[in-house]
Amino acid sequence: MLSVADACAAILDALPPRPATAAPLAEALGLCLTEPARATVDSPPFDKAMMDGYAVRSADCGGPPVTLTVIEEVPAGAVPTRTVGPGQCVKIMTGAPLPDGADAVIPVELSRRDGDRVTLSPPAPPQPGAAVMARGAAVEVGAELVAAGVPLTPAAIGLLAEHGYDPVPVVPRLRVAVLSTGDEVVPASQTPGPGQIRDANGPLLAAALAAAGATPVPLGLVGDDRAALTAKVREGLAADVLLLSGGVSMGDYDLVPGVLADCGVRQVFHKVNVKPGKPLWFGVHDGDGRPTAVFGLPGNPVSSLTGFELFVRPALRRLAGRSSRTPRRLRARLTEAVANRGDRPLYRPVRLTPTPEGLAAEPVRWAGSGDLHGAAGANGAALIPGASHLAAGETVKAFRWAGCE
Amino acid sequence: MLSVADACAAILDALPPRPATAAPLAEALGLCLTEPARATVDSPPFDKAMMDGYAVRSADCGGPPVTLTVIEEVPAGAVPTRTVGPGQCVKIMTGAPLPDGADAVIPVELSRRDGDRVTLSPPAPPQPGAAVMARGAAVEVGAELVAAGVPLTPAAIGLLAEHGYDPVPVVPRLRVAVLSTGDEVVPASQTPGPGQIRDANGPLLAAALAAAGATPVPLGLVGDDRAALTAKVREGLAADVLLLSGGVSMGDYDLVPGVLADCGVRQVFHKVNVKPGKPLWFGVHDGDGRPTAVFGLPGNPVSSLTGFELFVRPALRRLAGRSSRTPRRLRARLTEAVANRGDRPLYRPVRLTPTPEGLAAEPVRWAGSGDLHGAAGANGAALIPGASHLAAGETVKAFRWAGCE
Repeated sequence: MLSVADACAAILDALPPRPATAAPLAEALGLCLTEPARATVDSPPFDKAMMDGYAVRSADCGGPPVTLTVIEEVPAGAVPTRTVGPGQCVKIMTGAPLPDGADAVIPVELSRRDGDRVTLSPPAPPQPGAAVMARGAAVEVGAELVAAGVPLTPAAIGLLAEHGYDPVPVVPRLRVAVLSTGDEVVPASQTPGPGQIRDANGPLLAAALAAAGATPVPLGLVGDDRAALTAKVREGLAADVLLLSGGVSMGDYDLVPGVLADCGVRQVFHKVNVKPGKPLWFGVHDGDGRPTAVFGLPGNPVSSLTGFELFVRPALRRLAGRSSRTPRRLRARLTEAVANRGDRPLYRPVRLTPTPEGLAAEPVRWAGSGDLHGAAGANGAALIPGASHLAAGETVKAFRWAGCE
Repeated sequence: MLSVADACAAILDALPPRPATAAPLAEALGLCLTEPARATVDSPPFDKAMMDGYAVRSADCGGPPVTLTVIEEVPAGAVPTRTVGPGQCVKIMTGAPLPDGADAVIPVELSRRDGDRVTLSPPAPPQPGAAVMARGAAVEVGAELVAAGVPLTPAAIGLLAEHGYDPVPVVPRLRVAVLSTGDEVVPASQTPGPGQIRDANGPLLAAALAAAGATPVPLGLVGDDRAALTAKVREGLAADVLLLSGGVSMGDYDLVPGVLADCGVRQVFHKVNVKPGKPLWFGVHDGDGRPTAVFGLPGNPVSSLTGFELFVRPALRRLAGRSSRTPRRLRARLTEAVANRGDRPLYRPVRLTPTPEGLAAEPVRWAGSGDLHGAAGANGAALIPGASHLAAGETVKAFRWAGCE
């Protein structure tokens, strides 16, 4: 049976990044540039006043207080027209260009105005450059602003706006179809009959996708009916990724692998040596050179969540053009002993909390892969190797789940 | 001048949580319940098979292999109709209810079927409860499922679905209007003239709001024109929060405080003892008992970002009904020495990276509040007290910015 690492490698090998598009900057949060953005202007584009006040020659202000002649007033957005000579100054607003001749700004709070004369009383003589941001101090034209392959943050979005990047060349937000299967499953809004349960996986996976920066496309529920399942799968293959839950274990009623094959989805693997989530199925549909990744996730909700975190998230990163394949590895210290009596590696729900000594991992009360209540009290998982017993204080690999703080 | 802590307290005192609404579960990621949700059913609602296989009496299987008579087949979604007696078993699918009499499931992989007889060869005799999840093992009816005042995670969304909560009682997603002011500012799509710059704050703040789970309502740009500014402010007061950037320092052209007063916005404070971001303005508009929080953020982009993180985010948490007032405090170790020559506390952009010994804070190259390029290389800020010089290795308070990993 495939290891988690080999399964991840097989997924990444099967999936090329999706092609670039031009997206409005306002919709680009979390998307990745497909080429680096470079500065189109010096920033700031001119020596810029950083406070409201008076632009002075610092050499004039060696012994404050000093009284100078105000030769001009320059609001932000306007341009100074005169050169500041000895004994002169210009009234200036935050953000305005510094006039020629001046090399410092003294804040308006430290001034007393009298007609065209002003007395300035800084506590100490201003240094050249005081309250001035020099042209190009932040970045010079041509320098790299934002790297490709890294999700755009709010500051990066602001920076791209400052340099005129709108629209931006990015991999568009991934659309991911979500389909729950099984005759035993009814929608959340319905009261289950005998032997039935409500669908937790559909809402869970849609929320996890949104938290991971993708757009979920809910396809609802389908029972164990070959024709209905086939129709829904074909609908889902229009998305970038199709997630199914349920119907991938060994049972006689597990139609999913057969229907996927009939729809032209090429199986890459079925089953991974992991707990929970062993029956995971992965394949690719090559629709006219536009591949759709297809995951068959197990029906137990914590198995589905684990499969999403371990396998779907790396696939989303790859498809979205992220340069790093996997999230940053975390290490955490167990607050309690944990045993894994089985032979498969266990990704056990834990509550991760930062402490001054690093991350702590507290094992939540958890009754296994059907226990979503336990998992909802966690914010991630700790890897407990097969057939092992870890003591409190031992260090484990840890993973923070999407949408959890 | 107000301290950061006093300013935060004043903001939180002025803002009650917004009232509850009933929202579709599919739109509730990150929102807070206004009352705790309790289990409506035992979970699982019946003793549930956790694998495809044969439901047996464990007492029959003391010396495997054992051959039993298959008296019924129960797919998931169906209900067993017969009681398993000695020497009998029932074929069962993952998720199906366990028949009366049976107390364990043996996986189908370990079976060999011959007509109505099956030979089961588990490696060891099954324990009672093997591959069975007992009714109520995850949660019993009436127990608290999800607390109020905590942002809903994907697992919590799935859990609420399992218990039929759709719609859910939550504080609805906050709508936050964003308005950039100043004659010197032009849109990202336009080429700045002399003395002009493109608007970075509008796109930055809209992205930060989306990253923090609110819905940005972009109002665009307005110049230093009283009538136009008044019209835009009135439009913004329809939102839960209005963010303005620029126009709040001491300059003659800073119209914002006056226009806000004219529009009935009551000033709570103006100016905070912090760097960057000192000129921050905060007030409240009491529109028919539906208060709108109004922030005047400074025009320099890193000042605006700092004001958003320190003051707007706590306000959003309060309005959204979060029970904890502030994000979890982080502590990080500086990788390099940092000086703060000024007397105000400095929130300096840093790159926070988890290490086995806790968080490391690397001070990025940064030229001050106008340097968004430096800030875009950071993912948070470290607090450097006024007039202090911290050596490499010293511990600082740290804050991770919204939308940054």
